Amino acid sequence: MAGALQFEIEETVGVISTNKSGWKRELNLVSWNGRPAKFDLRDWAPDHSKMGKGLTFTNDELDQLRQILNEMLTN
Amino acid sequence: MAGALQFEIEETVGVISTNKSGWKRELNLVSWNGRPAKFDLRDWAPDHSKMGKGLTFTNDELDQLRQILNEMLTN
Repeated sequence: MAGALQFEIEETVGVISTNKSGWKRELNLVSWNGRPAKFDLRDWAPDHSKMGKGLTFTNDELDQLRQILNEMLTN
Repeated sequence: MAGALQFEIEETVGVISTNKSGWKRELNLVSWNGRPAKFDLRDWAPDHSKMGKGLTFTNDELDQLRQILNEMLTN
């Protein structure tokens, strides 16, 4: 790695699940290395002390994902 | 790695985005190593010849994600 990854969770939009170890899958607005915040879907250890796998999304991607999920799932 | 990862894309539920290189971010139903298929949100090269980062979801997680996105975004 070329150095420490800096991040700031500016907002937790929602928590998708919590596993037995207390890790949570969250949708957050995250600023990486001081850049403008992006939506980020990722697994986090309690207190955000460690991060797991995740994906970053543009606003358009999130809206497209929402539409796909709404077409697939019923209320 | 302990061996080749086997997968079968049983259904492409939707395409979220396509980048300049032709990679697509897709929501699929994927069977990993012959196990029952799970929902999988992941980046894929054209023709699914290579896979990128991604996350696997339970049905409950996808529904929770849908509710979070619907609360956040308007039509």
